[in-house]
Amino acid sequence: MSYVNPEGDFNRDTKYIETRITADGRDGYPVEPGRYRLVVARACPWANRAIIVRRLLGLEDVLSIGFCGPTHDERSWTFDLDPGGVDPVLQIPRLQDAYFARFPDYSKGITVPAIVDVPTGAVVTNDFPQLTLDLSTEWTEYHRPGAPQLYPEPLRAEIDEVSQRIYTEVNNGVYRCGFAGSQDAYESAYDRLFTALDWLSERLAGQRFLVGDTITEADVRLFTTLARFDPVYHGHFKCNRQKLAELPVLWAYARDLFQTPGFGDTVDFAQIKTHYYVVHADINPTRVVPKGPDLANWLTPHGREALGGKPFGDGTPPGPPRDGERVDQTL
Amino acid sequence: MSYVNPEGDFNRDTKYIETRITADGRDGYPVEPGRYRLVVARACPWANRAIIVRRLLGLEDVLSIGFCGPTHDERSWTFDLDPGGVDPVLQIPRLQDAYFARFPDYSKGITVPAIVDVPTGAVVTNDFPQLTLDLSTEWTEYHRPGAPQLYPEPLRAEIDEVSQRIYTEVNNGVYRCGFAGSQDAYESAYDRLFTALDWLSERLAGQRFLVGDTITEADVRLFTTLARFDPVYHGHFKCNRQKLAELPVLWAYARDLFQTPGFGDTVDFAQIKTHYYVVHADINPTRVVPKGPDLANWLTPHGREALGGKPFGDGTPPGPPRDGERVDQTL
Repeated sequence: MSYVNPEGDFNRDTKYIETRITADGRDGYPVEPGRYRLVVARACPWANRAIIVRRLLGLEDVLSIGFCGPTHDERSWTFDLDPGGVDPVLQIPRLQDAYFARFPDYSKGITVPAIVDVPTGAVVTNDFPQLTLDLSTEWTEYHRPGAPQLYPEPLRAEIDEVSQRIYTEVNNGVYRCGFAGSQDAYESAYDRLFTALDWLSERLAGQRFLVGDTITEADVRLFTTLARFDPVYHGHFKCNRQKLAELPVLWAYARDLFQTPGFGDTVDFAQIKTHYYVVHADINPTRVVPKGPDLANWLTPHGREALGGKPFGDGTPPGPPRDGERVDQTL
Repeated sequence: MSYVNPEGDFNRDTKYIETRITADGRDGYPVEPGRYRLVVARACPWANRAIIVRRLLGLEDVLSIGFCGPTHDERSWTFDLDPGGVDPVLQIPRLQDAYFARFPDYSKGITVPAIVDVPTGAVVTNDFPQLTLDLSTEWTEYHRPGAPQLYPEPLRAEIDEVSQRIYTEVNNGVYRCGFAGSQDAYESAYDRLFTALDWLSERLAGQRFLVGDTITEADVRLFTTLARFDPVYHGHFKCNRQKLAELPVLWAYARDLFQTPGFGDTVDFAQIKTHYYVVHADINPTRVVPKGPDLANWLTPHGREALGGKPFGDGTPPGPPRDGERVDQTL
């Protein structure tokens, strides 16, 4: 595995296309309704962040969305869910076509989420941590009425700090467990992961959300990993000290978010499981996808309202997902 | 995988060496103190049955025991835990040597448990379901005072019936999940397994043990699979509708037995995990062994005493394990 160093540690390539879409258009890509297309895969935790944020902010009418299927081959993500296997707006079968339209010799990973400039068909950015922050701070003119502030000025330092630890120890930590190339590398990844989950349990025992008393970008970032924990990371990545469902505080926190409009309604458990178990044939050679776990418990009462806090602050939750953007799922 | 048929189903080769050691010696191998050696691996659920039954019946002084290590190569189980890698009584490095001493062209699986005739160094039997029953019914002259009746005459029909369903659906059912060669074969194995676990939960909700009101052979047979469920079968074999720890009745039942002398003190979780995750490189190519799950919860109160029943009936529990037969384990 090319992501594993000689000591067996997993290293994520974090060099992304850093072009930004901004209100002032300083990188040549100004915020503009209808101009861009967000390309995601519901399976992917990094893309799931962007799906959630776009929906929470009500950007559906100004930023369209294209969905790649859950599995991909060595040439990466495809539009196999679309009629004819072609994205209806970009008219391409593979996300890599949009990367090559921008950089003909693009040699790095073809990743989701990516935002594509529709007129040129070229990827603008795949810089996932910046991408969602920019939806919050550069697209403000187009936010729906009542949209939450996911990255409010006074809390940014704290959100950044918490998010950084969540990124290295949890979001990426589960991958470090799953792709460890040696027993030692795995064990130290496992210890780091559960140390961080214990820290989060402690932090969230007395407060409903990670930072402040409303949902923020930090909650979005933790949520997409927690949603995948029991269906995938626990077994497939051997993150198995406990299931999420056995960590009372984090489990209640995750259900609280799951039941909040804009979070759970973006999660497609079937696509998530298929993605990891089929794509990672190096750790699951049979490609058999587990039938469990039973997920109906995501809808059970969480009791977190007692901690105070209001998910949307003085704002309002988003309405139901649009036609064509609904997850077909029975829990 | 040679155990998988064209439809992808796992089939266990159940043709064992059926010679029996009996009180009357009708197969040429009479019960005789000091003559035989029981060869086991703590990792193996089928061997674990024999370890438990020998201990419950107090046969330590008349039937010695040899322990193979948790992993093995294509030539099967070895005495790698012993000084010099040689069994101190049989003076052989590999269990297959004892099989070849009996049948020079033996071509079937070299399995544990096996009972070896020490004078000739030849395997007498590896017929695991018969082996434990014979310890109960043929070795009675040498049972310790207070030994339980694990296969009492009046309950045999019921024990046989319950054990048969446990064997096909649970003991072997977890393997059918793990070694399924297709998604369909896996899913039907999973459904059969959890249907049986639901039946067992229902049966055990109102009664402390499977048959009658004391421990029997049926409990021994179910226990060794339950002990491996969360450490191995849940993740490695994708038996993941719930963890055992999430099935309240079975989990309390399993802890009750675990905390009963002769059961939990034979279980070596480290060897169990190492065995499955290292030997089955076809489903775990990295051979990384999960660090979890946290197992301290096996020692928590189970509350099953309230259901009545006495594990040993009018008898008594066995004393502590002998020197050299203790599991070195901290939960």
